[in-house]
Amino acid sequence: MERESAAPASCYFFYPQLVCLVGVLDPVRDGCNFAPVVWASPMSSDPPLFGICLSPKTYSYELVLKVGEFTLNFLDAAQTPLVQRLGKLSGRTTDKVKTLNLPLAPPETLETPTLAMAYVAAECQLRDRHPVGDQILLIGEVMGVQVQPGAFDADGVLRLERVSPLFYLGGGRYVTTERRTCTGSTTSSD
Amino acid sequence: MERESAAPASCYFFYPQLVCLVGVLDPVRDGCNFAPVVWASPMSSDPPLFGICLSPKTYSYELVLKVGEFTLNFLDAAQTPLVQRLGKLSGRTTDKVKTLNLPLAPPETLETPTLAMAYVAAECQLRDRHPVGDQILLIGEVMGVQVQPGAFDADGVLRLERVSPLFYLGGGRYVTTERRTCTGSTTSSD
Repeated sequence: MERESAAPASCYFFYPQLVCLVGVLDPVRDGCNFAPVVWASPMSSDPPLFGICLSPKTYSYELVLKVGEFTLNFLDAAQTPLVQRLGKLSGRTTDKVKTLNLPLAPPETLETPTLAMAYVAAECQLRDRHPVGDQILLIGEVMGVQVQPGAFDADGVLRLERVSPLFYLGGGRYVTTERRTCTGSTTSSD
Repeated sequence: MERESAAPASCYFFYPQLVCLVGVLDPVRDGCNFAPVVWASPMSSDPPLFGICLSPKTYSYELVLKVGEFTLNFLDAAQTPLVQRLGKLSGRTTDKVKTLNLPLAPPETLETPTLAMAYVAAECQLRDRHPVGDQILLIGEVMGVQVQPGAFDADGVLRLERVSPLFYLGGGRYVTTERRTCTGSTTSSD
Protein backbone atom coordinates (compact mmCIF):
# COMPACT_ATOMS: atom_id res chain seq x y z
CA MET A 1 0.00 0.00 0.00
CA GLU A 2 1.46 3.34 -1.04
CA ARG A 3 1.27 6.15 1.46
CA GLU A 4 1.69 9.89 1.34
CA SER A 5 3.39 12.34 3.70
CA ALA A 6 1.29 14.61 5.89
CA ALA A 7 2.01 17.56 8.15
CA PRO A 8 2.97 16.27 11.61
CA ALA A 9 1.04 19.00 13.41
CA SER A 10 -2.44 17.44 13.55
CA CYS A 11 -3.22 15.27 16.56
CA TYR A 12 -6.38 13.97 14.82
CA PHE A 13 -4.25 11.29 13.14
CA PHE A 14 -4.11 9.54 16.50
CA TYR A 15 -7.84 9.72 17.22
CA PRO A 16 -10.50 8.46 18.15
CA GLN A 17 -9.63 8.99 21.79
CA LEU A 18 -11.85 8.10 24.75
CA VAL A 19 -13.51 11.17 26.27
CA CYS A 20 -12.69 11.70 29.94
CA LEU A 21 -14.63 14.34 31.86
CA VAL A 22 -12.29 15.74 34.47
CA GLY A 23 -14.01 17.03 37.61
CA VAL A 24 -12.31 19.49 39.95
CA LEU A 25 -13.49 21.29 43.09
CA ASP A 26 -13.89 25.03 42.70
CA PRO A 27 -13.25 26.54 46.15
CA VAL A 28 -14.20 30.10 45.12
CA ARG A 29 -17.58 29.00 43.77
CA ASP A 30 -18.01 26.34 46.44
CA GLY A 31 -18.81 23.98 43.58
CA CYS A 32 -17.20 21.73 41.04
CA ASN A 33 -16.13 22.11 37.40
CA PHE A 34 -16.18 19.42 34.68
CA ALA A 35 -14.27 19.60 31.38
CA PRO A 36 -13.71 17.02 28.61
CA VAL A 37 -10.12 15.83 28.14
CA VAL A 38 -8.95 13.36 25.49
CA TRP A 39 -5.18 13.50 25.91
CA ALA A 40 -5.36 11.11 28.82
CA SER A 41 -4.29 7.55 29.58
CA PRO A 42 -3.67 5.02 32.31
CA MET A 43 0.07 5.17 33.01
CA SER A 44 0.88 2.63 35.73
CA SER A 45 -0.68 -0.44 37.37
CA ASP A 46 1.13 -0.44 40.70
CA PRO A 47 0.44 2.14 41.96
CA PRO A 48 -2.57 2.80 39.70
CA LEU A 49 -1.77 6.12 38.01
CA PHE A 50 -3.72 8.02 35.36
CA GLY A 51 -2.33 10.96 33.39
CA ILE A 52 -4.24 13.91 31.92
CA CYS A 53 -2.81 16.67 29.74
CA LEU A 54 -4.19 20.15 30.34
CA SER A 55 -3.17 23.48 28.91
CA PRO A 56 -1.81 25.68 31.72
CA LYS A 57 -4.22 28.36 30.43
CA THR A 58 -7.31 26.35 31.39
CA TYR A 59 -9.49 26.91 34.41
CA SER A 60 -9.34 23.16 35.19
CA TYR A 61 -5.56 23.28 35.38
CA GLU A 62 -5.64 26.18 37.85
CA LEU A 63 -8.19 24.32 39.99
CA VAL A 64 -6.27 21.01 40.05
CA LEU A 65 -3.15 22.82 41.22
CA LYS A 66 -5.14 24.53 43.97
CA VAL A 67 -6.99 21.53 45.34
CA GLY A 68 -4.57 18.68 44.53
CA GLU A 69 -7.14 16.16 43.36
CA PHE A 70 -9.59 15.48 40.52
CA THR A 71 -12.11 12.93 39.32
CA LEU A 72 -12.33 11.04 36.01
CA ASN A 73 -15.80 10.46 34.58
CA PHE A 74 -16.60 8.30 31.54
CA LEU A 75 -20.00 8.71 29.87
CA ASP A 76 -22.09 6.66 27.49
CA ALA A 77 -22.35 7.90 23.89
CA ALA A 78 -26.00 8.75 24.59
CA GLN A 79 -24.59 11.74 26.49
CA THR A 80 -22.83 13.21 23.43
CA PRO A 81 -24.81 16.52 23.44
CA LEU A 82 -23.99 17.05 27.11
CA VAL A 83 -20.29 16.43 26.49
CA GLN A 84 -20.37 18.88 23.57
CA ARG A 85 -21.91 21.54 25.78
CA LEU A 86 -19.42 20.88 28.58
CA GLY A 87 -16.62 21.40 26.05
CA LYS A 88 -18.02 24.70 24.79
CA LEU A 89 -18.70 26.38 28.14
CA SER A 90 -15.84 27.81 30.19
CA GLY A 91 -15.78 27.12 33.91
CA ARG A 92 -14.13 30.48 34.37
CA THR A 93 -17.35 32.30 33.49
CA THR A 94 -20.05 29.63 33.93
CA ASP A 95 -21.05 27.32 36.76
CA LYS A 96 -21.53 24.31 34.48
CA VAL A 97 -23.07 22.13 37.19
CA LYS A 98 -25.83 24.68 37.83
CA THR A 99 -26.27 25.74 34.21
CA LEU A 100 -26.58 22.18 32.91
CA ASN A 101 -28.24 20.90 36.08
CA LEU A 102 -25.69 18.09 36.37
CA PRO A 103 -26.52 15.37 38.90
CA LEU A 104 -23.47 14.68 41.08
CA ALA A 105 -22.52 11.67 43.16
CA PRO A 106 -20.69 12.23 46.45
CA PRO A 107 -17.01 11.21 46.65
CA GLU A 108 -16.18 8.02 48.53
CA THR A 109 -12.46 8.37 49.24
CA LEU A 110 -11.46 12.00 48.55
CA GLU A 111 -13.35 15.32 48.42
CA THR A 112 -14.36 15.79 44.76
CA PRO A 113 -17.77 14.62 43.51
CA THR A 114 -18.24 12.62 40.32
CA LEU A 115 -20.91 12.75 37.62
CA ALA A 116 -23.79 10.50 38.69
CA MET A 117 -24.42 9.38 35.09
CA ALA A 118 -20.83 8.13 34.53
CA TYR A 119 -20.63 4.37 33.94
CA VAL A 120 -17.26 4.51 35.67
CA ALA A 121 -15.80 7.30 37.77
CA ALA A 122 -12.48 7.49 39.60
CA GLU A 123 -11.13 9.71 42.36
CA CYS A 124 -7.51 10.75 41.86
CA GLN A 125 -4.95 12.37 44.12
CA LEU A 126 -2.48 14.57 42.24
CA ARG A 127 0.98 13.00 42.56
CA ASP A 128 3.15 14.67 39.96
CA ARG A 129 3.22 17.09 37.05
CA HIS A 130 5.50 17.56 34.06
CA PRO A 131 5.47 20.25 31.38
CA VAL A 132 5.04 18.53 27.99
CA GLY A 133 5.21 21.05 25.13
CA ASP A 134 2.21 23.35 25.29
CA GLN A 135 0.50 21.20 27.94
CA ILE A 136 1.10 20.13 31.52
CA LEU A 137 0.84 16.41 32.26
CA LEU A 138 -0.90 15.90 35.60
CA ILE A 139 -0.51 12.45 37.11
CA GLY A 140 -3.10 11.27 39.59
CA GLU A 141 -3.18 8.16 41.74
CA VAL A 142 -6.50 6.35 41.46
CA MET A 143 -7.71 6.15 45.07
CA GLY A 144 -11.27 4.99 44.44
CA VAL A 145 -13.44 3.75 41.59
CA GLN A 146 -17.23 3.59 41.30
CA VAL A 147 -18.90 1.63 38.54
CA GLN A 148 -22.44 1.29 37.26
CA PRO A 149 -23.59 -2.22 38.27
CA GLY A 150 -23.41 -4.58 35.30
CA ALA A 151 -21.25 -2.25 33.20
CA PHE A 152 -18.19 -4.51 33.55
CA ASP A 153 -17.87 -8.28 33.48
CA ALA A 154 -16.20 -10.45 36.15
CA ASP A 155 -12.78 -9.71 34.63
CA GLY A 156 -13.40 -5.97 34.84
CA VAL A 157 -13.84 -5.69 31.07
CA LEU A 158 -16.47 -3.27 29.73
CA ARG A 159 -19.67 -4.93 28.50
CA LEU A 160 -20.21 -3.32 25.12
CA GLU A 161 -23.73 -4.68 24.89
CA ARG A 162 -24.61 -2.50 27.91
CA VAL A 163 -22.35 0.54 27.57
CA SER A 164 -21.36 2.51 24.45
CA PRO A 165 -18.14 4.32 25.40
CA LEU A 166 -17.75 7.82 23.97
CA PHE A 167 -14.76 8.73 21.79
CA TYR A 168 -13.79 12.02 20.22
CA LEU A 169 -13.03 11.56 16.52
CA GLY A 170 -11.90 15.15 15.83
CA GLY A 171 -13.52 18.01 13.94
CA GLY A 172 -16.37 18.23 16.45
CA ARG A 173 -17.46 14.63 15.84
CA TYR A 174 -17.90 11.75 18.27
CA VAL A 175 -18.10 8.00 17.79
CA THR A 176 -18.68 4.83 19.78
CA THR A 177 -17.66 1.19 19.48
CA GLU A 178 -19.35 -1.70 17.75
CA ARG A 179 -21.04 -4.09 20.16
CA ARG A 180 -19.22 -7.14 18.87
CA THR A 181 -15.52 -7.65 19.47
CA CYS A 182 -12.99 -8.28 16.70
CA THR A 183 -12.39 -11.93 16.04
CA GLY A 184 -9.92 -11.36 13.28
CA SER A 185 -11.87 -13.62 10.97
CA THR A 186 -11.88 -10.83 8.40
CA THR A 187 -8.11 -10.66 8.20
CA SER A 188 -5.88 -12.09 5.57
CA SER A 189 -2.65 -11.32 7.39
CA ASP A 190 -2.39 -14.67 9.10
CA MET B 1 -28.27 5.61 38.89
CA GLU B 2 -26.77 3.81 41.86
CA ARG B 3 -23.15 2.77 41.59
CA GLU B 4 -20.89 0.43 43.46
CA SER B 5 -17.28 0.70 44.55
CA ALA B 6 -14.60 -1.28 42.75
CA ALA B 7 -10.92 -1.97 43.35
CA PRO B 8 -8.87 0.87 41.86
CA ALA B 9 -6.17 -1.48 40.58
CA SER B 10 -7.65 -2.46 37.20
CA CYS B 11 -6.79 -0.25 34.26
CA TYR B 12 -9.51 -1.97 32.17
CA PHE B 13 -12.04 0.51 33.58
CA PHE B 14 -10.47 3.11 31.33
CA TYR B 15 -10.52 1.01 28.15
CA PRO B 16 -11.05 0.64 25.15
CA GLN B 17 -7.73 2.25 24.22
CA LEU B 18 -6.42 2.69 20.68
CA VAL B 19 -3.68 0.17 19.87
CA CYS B 20 -0.38 1.76 18.87
CA LEU B 21 2.36 -0.48 17.48
CA VAL B 22 5.66 1.02 18.54
CA GLY B 23 8.55 0.33 16.17
CA VAL B 24 12.17 0.59 17.29
CA LEU B 25 15.45 -0.11 15.54
CA ASP B 26 17.38 -3.08 16.92
CA PRO B 27 21.08 -2.36 16.28
CA VAL B 28 22.26 -5.80 17.47
CA ARG B 29 19.92 -7.63 15.12
CA ASP B 30 20.28 -5.00 12.40
CA GLY B 31 16.50 -5.00 12.25
CA CYS B 32 13.46 -3.49 13.87
CA ASN B 33 11.09 -4.53 16.64
CA PHE B 34 7.35 -3.80 16.91
CA ALA B 35 5.25 -4.06 20.08
CA PRO B 36 1.65 -3.05 20.86
CA VAL B 37 1.23 -0.24 23.39
CA VAL B 38 -2.10 1.10 24.63
CA TRP B 39 -1.00 3.48 27.37
CA ALA B 40 -0.24 6.17 24.86
CA SER B 41 -1.63 9.58 23.89
CA PRO B 42 -0.95 12.77 22.00
CA MET B 43 0.38 15.22 24.62
CA SER B 44 1.08 18.53 22.89
CA SER B 45 0.20 20.35 19.64
CA ASP B 46 3.11 22.77 19.37
CA PRO B 47 5.52 21.08 19.26
CA PRO B 48 3.61 17.89 18.31
CA LEU B 49 4.47 15.43 21.08
CA PHE B 50 3.23 11.89 21.65
CA GLY B 51 3.75 9.92 24.87
CA ILE B 52 4.05 6.15 25.29
CA CYS B 53 4.32 4.27 28.58
CA LEU B 54 6.64 1.28 28.59
CA SER B 55 7.76 -0.97 31.41
CA PRO B 56 11.50 -0.54 31.95
CA LYS B 57 11.70 -4.34 31.79
CA THR B 58 10.65 -4.46 28.14
CA TYR B 59 12.93 -4.97 25.17
CA SER B 60 11.27 -2.01 23.40
CA TYR B 61 12.19 0.28 26.28
CA GLU B 62 15.83 -0.78 26.12
CA LEU B 63 15.90 -0.21 22.38
CA VAL B 64 14.29 3.25 22.50
CA LEU B 65 16.85 4.40 25.06
CA LYS B 66 19.66 3.08 22.84
CA VAL B 67 18.54 4.56 19.54
CA GLY B 68 16.63 7.67 20.67
CA GLU B 69 13.72 7.36 18.27
CA PHE B 70 10.67 5.23 17.51
CA THR B 71 7.72 4.98 15.16
CA LEU B 72 3.98 4.84 15.87
CA ASN B 73 1.89 2.55 13.67
CA PHE B 74 -1.93 2.35 13.72
CA LEU B 75 -3.60 -0.66 12.09
CA ASP B 76 -7.06 -1.47 10.85
CA ALA B 77 -9.14 -3.91 12.93
CA ALA B 78 -8.75 -6.45 10.10
CA GLN B 79 -5.20 -6.89 11.43
CA THR B 80 -6.36 -8.04 14.89
CA PRO B 81 -4.70 -11.50 14.67
CA LEU B 82 -1.39 -9.93 13.69
CA VAL B 83 -1.56 -7.49 16.62
CA GLN B 84 -2.33 -10.37 18.98
CA ARG B 85 0.71 -12.27 17.74
CA LEU B 86 2.92 -9.19 18.02
CA GLY B 87 1.80 -8.85 21.63
CA LYS B 88 2.58 -12.45 22.49
CA LEU B 89 6.05 -12.70 20.97
CA SER B 90 9.05 -11.14 22.73
CA GLY B 91 11.49 -9.15 20.64
CA ARG B 92 14.21 -10.28 23.03
CA THR B 93 14.03 -13.82 21.68
CA THR B 94 12.26 -13.44 18.34
CA ASP B 95 12.85 -11.36 15.25
CA LYS B 96 9.17 -10.48 14.81
CA VAL B 97 9.65 -8.86 11.40
CA LYS B 98 11.19 -12.04 9.98
CA THR B 99 8.95 -14.47 11.86
CA LEU B 100 5.73 -12.72 10.85
CA ASN B 101 7.10 -11.60 7.49
CA LEU B 102 6.09 -8.00 8.20
CA PRO B 103 6.23 -5.63 5.21
CA LEU B 104 8.06 -2.45 6.21
CA ALA B 105 8.01 1.03 4.72
CA PRO B 106 11.23 3.06 4.72
CA PRO B 107 11.44 6.07 7.07
CA GLU B 108 11.09 9.52 5.51
CA THR B 109 12.55 11.82 8.16
CA LEU B 110 14.40 9.66 10.71
CA GLU B 111 15.99 6.17 10.65
CA THR B 112 13.25 3.80 11.85
CA PRO B 113 10.94 2.02 9.37
CA THR B 114 7.18 1.86 9.80
CA LEU B 115 4.68 -0.92 9.14
CA ALA B 116 3.60 -0.70 5.49
CA MET B 117 0.03 -1.74 6.35
CA ALA B 118 -0.49 1.08 8.90
CA TYR B 119 -3.21 3.56 7.85
CA VAL B 120 -1.17 6.19 9.65
CA ALA B 121 2.42 6.00 10.84
CA ALA B 122 4.56 8.60 12.58
CA GLU B 123 8.29 9.00 13.13
CA CYS B 124 9.20 10.28 16.59
CA GLN B 125 12.42 11.61 18.06
CA LEU B 126 12.76 10.87 21.79
CA ARG B 127 12.67 14.20 23.67
CA ASP B 128 12.09 13.32 27.31
CA ARG B 129 11.32 10.54 29.77
CA HIS B 130 9.71 10.43 33.20
CA PRO B 131 9.28 7.49 35.57
CA VAL B 132 5.54 7.07 36.25
CA GLY B 133 4.90 4.32 38.82
CA ASP B 134 5.87 0.96 37.32
CA GLN B 135 6.30 2.46 33.82
CA ILE B 136 8.51 4.99 32.09
CA LEU B 137 6.78 7.66 30.04
CA LEU B 138 8.73 8.28 26.84
CA ILE B 139 7.87 11.50 25.02
CA GLY B 140 8.59 11.70 21.32
CA GLU B 141 8.34 14.65 18.96
CA VAL B 142 6.41 13.76 15.81
CA MET B 143 8.86 14.59 13.01
CA GLY B 144 7.01 12.97 10.10
CA VAL B 145 3.65 11.38 9.36
CA GLN B 146 2.63 9.08 6.51
CA VAL B 147 -1.01 8.30 5.80
CA GLN B 148 -2.85 5.88 3.59
CA PRO B 149 -4.41 8.00 0.80
CA GLY B 150 -8.10 8.55 1.48
CA ALA B 151 -7.92 7.44 5.13
CA PHE B 152 -8.46 10.98 6.43
CA ASP B 153 -10.76 13.75 5.19
CA ALA B 154 -9.71 17.31 4.29
CA ASP B 155 -9.79 18.29 7.99
CA GLY B 156 -7.46 15.41 8.89
CA VAL B 157 -10.29 13.46 10.54
CA LEU B 158 -10.33 9.67 10.14
CA ARG B 159 -12.88 8.37 7.61
CA LEU B 160 -14.60 5.61 9.52
CA GLU B 161 -16.26 4.30 6.36
CA ARG B 162 -12.78 3.46 5.06
CA VAL B 163 -10.77 2.61 8.18
CA SER B 164 -11.80 0.63 11.27
CA PRO B 165 -9.37 1.72 14.00
CA LEU B 166 -8.28 -1.02 16.40
CA PHE B 167 -8.86 -0.69 20.15
CA TYR B 168 -7.89 -2.98 23.00
CA LEU B 169 -10.88 -3.67 25.23
CA GLY B 170 -9.03 -5.73 27.87
CA GLY B 171 -9.05 -9.43 28.69
CA GLY B 172 -7.50 -10.32 25.34
CA ARG B 173 -10.35 -8.75 23.38
CA TYR B 174 -10.32 -6.08 20.68
CA VAL B 175 -13.00 -3.81 19.28
CA THR B 176 -13.49 -1.20 16.58
CA THR B 177 -15.76 1.81 16.08
CA GLU B 178 -19.16 2.09 14.47
CA ARG B 179 -19.06 3.66 11.04
CA ARG B 180 -21.58 6.36 11.87
CA THR B 181 -20.75 9.19 14.25
CA CYS B 182 -22.81 10.06 17.32
CA THR B 183 -25.45 12.66 16.65
CA GLY B 184 -26.77 12.70 20.16
CA SER B 185 -30.30 12.11 18.90
CA THR B 186 -30.55 9.18 21.26
CA THR B 187 -29.90 11.23 24.34
CA SER B 188 -32.41 12.49 26.83
CA SER B 189 -29.94 14.66 28.71
CA ASP B 190 -30.60 17.79 26.71
